[in-house]
Amino acid sequence: MVITMGDPCGIGPEIIAKTWLEHPHLVRDCVVVGDAGVMVRALRLVSDVLGRDPDVLKVVSWPTGQLAPGGLEGAAPSGSPGTVSVFQPLDPLPALPDGKVHPVSGAAAAHWVSWAADQCLNGRFSAMVTAPLNKEALSAAGPPWSAYPGHTELLQARSARFLGCDTEAMPVRMMLSNAELSVVLVTIHMALREALDAITLPRVMQTLEITHVAFQRMLGRPPKMALAGVNPHAGEAGRFGREEIDVLEPAARRATERGWHVVGPIAPDTVFMRARQGEFDVVIAMYHDQGLIPVKYMGLDAGVNTTLGLPLVRTSPDHGTAYDIAWQGRADARSFTAALKQAKQCLAGR
Amino acid sequence: MVITMGDPCGIGPEIIAKTWLEHPHLVRDCVVVGDAGVMVRALRLVSDVLGRDPDVLKVVSWPTGQLAPGGLEGAAPSGSPGTVSVFQPLDPLPALPDGKVHPVSGAAAAHWVSWAADQCLNGRFSAMVTAPLNKEALSAAGPPWSAYPGHTELLQARSARFLGCDTEAMPVRMMLSNAELSVVLVTIHMALREALDAITLPRVMQTLEITHVAFQRMLGRPPKMALAGVNPHAGEAGRFGREEIDVLEPAARRATERGWHVVGPIAPDTVFMRARQGEFDVVIAMYHDQGLIPVKYMGLDAGVNTTLGLPLVRTSPDHGTAYDIAWQGRADARSFTAALKQAKQCLAGR
Repeated sequence: MVITMGDPCGIGPEIIAKTWLEHPHLVRDCVVVGDAGVMVRALRLVSDVLGRDPDVLKVVSWPTGQLAPGGLEGAAPSGSPGTVSVFQPLDPLPALPDGKVHPVSGAAAAHWVSWAADQCLNGRFSAMVTAPLNKEALSAAGPPWSAYPGHTELLQARSARFLGCDTEAMPVRMMLSNAELSVVLVTIHMALREALDAITLPRVMQTLEITHVAFQRMLGRPPKMALAGVNPHAGEAGRFGREEIDVLEPAARRATERGWHVVGPIAPDTVFMRARQGEFDVVIAMYHDQGLIPVKYMGLDAGVNTTLGLPLVRTSPDHGTAYDIAWQGRADARSFTAALKQAKQCLAGR
Repeated sequence: MVITMGDPCGIGPEIIAKTWLEHPHLVRDCVVVGDAGVMVRALRLVSDVLGRDPDVLKVVSWPTGQLAPGGLEGAAPSGSPGTVSVFQPLDPLPALPDGKVHPVSGAAAAHWVSWAADQCLNGRFSAMVTAPLNKEALSAAGPPWSAYPGHTELLQARSARFLGCDTEAMPVRMMLSNAELSVVLVTIHMALREALDAITLPRVMQTLEITHVAFQRMLGRPPKMALAGVNPHAGEAGRFGREEIDVLEPAARRATERGWHVVGPIAPDTVFMRARQGEFDVVIAMYHDQGLIPVKYMGLDAGVNTTLGLPLVRTSPDHGTAYDIAWQGRADARSFTAALKQAKQCLAGR
């Protein structure tokens, strides 16, 4: 499994270092793609804050020029206890400002993601876990990186290129999950009014298909999917809106005809509670806050973002670069370690 | 405090009986308005299911014809241990079908609510806690009761009549709460598309005012109110919708100018989590599911509905008549007992 270092001016290097120090079993099969010097600095800082011996882990840098055709996970001694293997596809980075937007930082972080995606697509790594990027740094990095608002678009583009198709033919969906609830979103970052127009039969069917396929792989069986309604009480037979009648009921029927296990549309105010109690494996949520309010309600510590629909496995923590606390040794690695566990779970059924 | 029996074909009488048997301290100052015969039957059933002596509680029926001008709570021996005092403003009810819609049942339940409201408005009871009505039974009851979709409209109408104003001049808001979260809704039972149009500056200001006044009474200090956004990330400065800029920011400014403690608009996906962790006393939610998803997420056992804005205190359990399990002794009284506690809390600051 490959871990991308994320923006080196943010908390990415620290949460990676913390995970290596505190959860060595979890990173036994993992390597990092990033900058070895940054990794050394992060390990020193975090060892210091945790009161650990700074020499307990050594960083081994691997050139990426002449890669073996086989799996990279075997090439680097990632399994050696006491070692952080860092693949370094770029020249060593210059000193960068802690907790600030920097074009070099943005470009390096994007390059590492792109490199890791290509390796995963070529089967050299089994999955990727991405430490946070910063949108402004990505934009400041200039072409080609400034064309991508974030990880998802970058991964879509690399995947489409690999498969020789258009990016539009590479639909993805964001899944947010924690220990008790998994939610896949039909619409994400748009005004709620626009989201209501974007909840169409094709889009809902595509979400169901992506979710069904991903969970079938993950669980080794067809998932029980719950379809959340759009309106209060799922519309009460048209009294409070028609999206359920016009879009969601037909979607549920078609999905059932295809042999998928879908229940709904279900009243939005109870479907997440029911999923939490174990009735469903995953809830298909119609818009950003419908899905994210329940996922975040119990706290942000261990939320995981998984991109479904790509020909590779990718998870990430559910937070950003946190420039305001970067390089102070204070960053919380719980969401990141949960993302590592989720990536392993995604691979479990393969 | 007066408890309305609710629809006698539903679970109201049972949850009242269960509360009297299991939480005698909680109902020490309470009387019931309803039918004494129904109360006797419910107490026998629940005593039997719980394995209690059926004679441990006796039902005392009080006529309502010649009421003392003072408080009724003093008139009836509600404080006597072992007694359920039932005020009976109607003739004894005939036998009614368990768990079915019946016009006599709907009319009686509505009459009791109306009677209790009038007594509260006249200062003869301090608060009312209402067991569930059934909308269909209310409709089947015919005029005048069929004009009211539920409790809220009935209470608005009685309050407006008492104050000699139009019902429109008696704005109310629904508050949903549990042990860890209180939410007041700007819009309720309408399609999400319509709700977006109904989130106007006057309506938000009215919600803030009603909430501020109610919580000031309840807490004895100005409440910390959080204003939830409409759009993802509260619109990100207009990138994802303009409701925050056009409506919510002006509302927050005006509220602050009036000396109210309002924070927001806050990203909807984190505001409820923050309130749960104690940062705010109450969240002003923009639409039904935004507020009800987090309130219900942890389970339905102890949700309470409080009507804010009325010149009386009224709480109710967060469930309906549950005809499917009525008169089987299986009804869960936790939400009802939570409603009793909430009513006491509403009175605490007075």
